[in-house]
Amino acid sequence: MNEANEVIRQLRERKSVRIFEDRTVPDAVKSDVIGAAFEAPTAGNMMFYTIIDVTDQQVKEQLAVLCDHQPFIAKAPLVLVFVADYERWYETYQAAGLVVRRPAVGDLILACADAFIAAQNTVVAAQSLGLGSCYIGDVLENCEQVRTLLALPAFTMPAAMVVYGYPTKQQLDRTKPARFGRNHIVHENRYRKMESDELLGMVSERGDKETIEALCERKYLSDFSLEMNRSVAEYLKNFGSQ
Amino acid sequence: MNEANEVIRQLRERKSVRIFEDRTVPDAVKSDVIGAAFEAPTAGNMMFYTIIDVTDQQVKEQLAVLCDHQPFIAKAPLVLVFVADYERWYETYQAAGLVVRRPAVGDLILACADAFIAAQNTVVAAQSLGLGSCYIGDVLENCEQVRTLLALPAFTMPAAMVVYGYPTKQQLDRTKPARFGRNHIVHENRYRKMESDELLGMVSERGDKETIEALCERKYLSDFSLEMNRSVAEYLKNFGSQ
Repeated sequence: MNEANEVIRQLRERKSVRIFEDRTVPDAVKSDVIGAAFEAPTAGNMMFYTIIDVTDQQVKEQLAVLCDHQPFIAKAPLVLVFVADYERWYETYQAAGLVVRRPAVGDLILACADAFIAAQNTVVAAQSLGLGSCYIGDVLENCEQVRTLLALPAFTMPAAMVVYGYPTKQQLDRTKPARFGRNHIVHENRYRKMESDELLGMVSERGDKETIEALCERKYLSDFSLEMNRSVAEYLKNFGSQ
Repeated sequence: MNEANEVIRQLRERKSVRIFEDRTVPDAVKSDVIGAAFEAPTAGNMMFYTIIDVTDQQVKEQLAVLCDHQPFIAKAPLVLVFVADYERWYETYQAAGLVVRRPAVGDLILACADAFIAAQNTVVAAQSLGLGSCYIGDVLENCEQVRTLLALPAFTMPAAMVVYGYPTKQQLDRTKPARFGRNHIVHENRYRKMESDELLGMVSERGDKETIEALCERKYLSDFSLEMNRSVAEYLKNFGSQ
């Protein structure tokens, strides 16, 4: 690891923060965080996303429940939902008098790309402003209720939610979790299927304390995971294959 | 816009670059770019992505053809494909002797999130190292051929490709395209449906030279767009709704 510039140093320092100081985010800081989304690359400069700025404490609390019951969500001073949005363009085409096909699954993935890329720019900007952040993938769950709560139209999906706030000292001092080795994740020219030994070694190498079985139960066979799959399938129903 | 820190300044300066100097990316720089992916947040620290580092000129040239015939892809000194990857964990569970369900659409979206977030960290890092970059969403097209070329297994999808290189002076001097106004993109507490006037105004406000009809033909009704939707639907076939 060579000497890092300021940007790379900050990328390395950034880790997820789930406990925040009881301190609001000043408007100017919030504006810079949201502004970073606008600086992100976006497919064809079309901005296939909408950012929902959740300021209503009741909405935060409902989201905390709907996103796998995580109370810290309701305590975050800044909560943004990054909605993959093909609705805006679909309606713009119609507003211009054009007769067009309905958005399909490829359009949705492209919109998800825009939403995630914009979200990550806000996370990077937040770090540089002293703000911690945490992605909440669980916003993909409970399609029907989240849709109603956020008034999401047909050709949208809440791709990601990010909560931000000033980290407590304990969170700042926390060690960033170790990643897998590059040799397992970076392949050259083509995907390299791995044998069992390498797969099991990949996990044990980084010193995970949890067994693979326990992790599987907690992350893959768990209720939230099954619900996420059901819910995403529900969002997908509006998008054809064209 | 207040005075920006170094990170935010660089996010603002970053724009897509498609023409590169004939200059290789030194190994240490490439290592820092790829390393930035590893610093990105990842769902449950599970790293649901594989990065394919395309070093073979023939593979680059095939990708340039398969990604909507864009020759500049083959001229990029650094080409990374960010593959949304649930295969690795599915096989790891099996290697551990567990009997598990097949990955489903929610798992795929979560893996896409990981892939896009990691990709954007590399784009930010690249900028700080003087490297331009461009996302190639077209890597979602031509499922069958891209799958064969990159040896992609069943529970993966190439979420994004990014090409990087040193920008030519002309590219550096190019003005970053204007985005839509924040009032259209950032909504408070719930999605705000817009009337025709606002939708049409949103586009005309930023001074786009292309008509909405022309944009629609080029981006939405065009062959590449139809192919992207067909191809993504093909990738999705392996993922159930559980």
